[in-house]
Amino acid sequence: MTDKHKDERNDGFTVRPIGYIESPYKDWAPYQPVEQEKGLGQFQVHVDSEYAAGLKNLDRFKYVILVFFCDKAAKSDALTARPPWTTRKIGLFASRSPDRPNPIGISIVRIHKIEGNVIYTWPIDVFDGTPLLDIKPYIATLDIKADADDGWIEGLEGKEHLMQHLRGIPHDHSEGH
Amino acid sequence: MTDKHKDERNDGFTVRPIGYIESPYKDWAPYQPVEQEKGLGQFQVHVDSEYAAGLKNLDRFKYVILVFFCDKAAKSDALTARPPWTTRKIGLFASRSPDRPNPIGISIVRIHKIEGNVIYTWPIDVFDGTPLLDIKPYIATLDIKADADDGWIEGLEGKEHLMQHLRGIPHDHSEGH
Repeated sequence: MTDKHKDERNDGFTVRPIGYIESPYKDWAPYQPVEQEKGLGQFQVHVDSEYAAGLKNLDRFKYVILVFFCDKAAKSDALTARPPWTTRKIGLFASRSPDRPNPIGISIVRIHKIEGNVIYTWPIDVFDGTPLLDIKPYIATLDIKADADDGWIEGLEGKEHLMQHLRGIPHDHSEGH
Repeated sequence: MTDKHKDERNDGFTVRPIGYIESPYKDWAPYQPVEQEKGLGQFQVHVDSEYAAGLKNLDRFKYVILVFFCDKAAKSDALTARPPWTTRKIGLFASRSPDRPNPIGISIVRIHKIEGNVIYTWPIDVFDGTPLLDIKPYIATLDIKADADDGWIEGLEGKEHLMQHLRGIPHDHSEGH
């Protein structure tokens, strides 16, 4: 089977970091941004000074979409992923695993404040020093899809508990979860 | 001013398309995905056959996040953008303009059906043949930020009308908008 347009794009494209993300995570990071106050101030998005002017007006938004390069992701050709807390293997593109053909990560995080070329945010699910590729505003009217669902996660036993893990919300394990 | 981590990442990273997006737009494209039935079937996300297995389980979701490379974006060093229907210049990272340091585009679109290595979607705001970099599930619990806002767009005169344009919704211009 031949794939259209494939020949003309074999070489790929080069992306260049516009800054980096500072986080306390050196060896481990949560699966998704953590929605809690703890750690606020330890998470900073540093935009290289040459791009700082592009941050103008961004502080008018509550949330921002960070696009980054998961440079520590595993180089793997696997097309399945096994998300945490499930034994099922699912298709890679139905997962948010960082181990992807192009390890481009996306996180939607809340802006705390912007000072100069630094965005202070609520915790982000990335390793310290992660190269930043882009910043976009999260626009409620466009990006909230009110009728969206949780896909294959819907049917999982203990979904609520899984979601607390995914969102990094501290919770009680005393009932044997 | 020196920027930390900068030396070690001057060369950038290479991203390689995993497929392409087929759309009817050759010379013009809407600013955001169009939420209407019209054109359904003309919009297809083609994943190269070697990656098709990664689509497993994706059809369990209503929405998908497409990550693509805007290879037709203007090469510009400008750090401001002038979005349509406003005369204001805003910071580039507070806009969704494709003319960015790394022209990586993100669109959240509704899945119509998936057959083999093709995702049929509702209209997408991209040119025909746009190189596809990644596909991620839009997960309601994680990606709906219910308290998000529309940032600088909130204060614009005629915001509702602007949003109809941004969303590509056909509407009445008879009142002189």
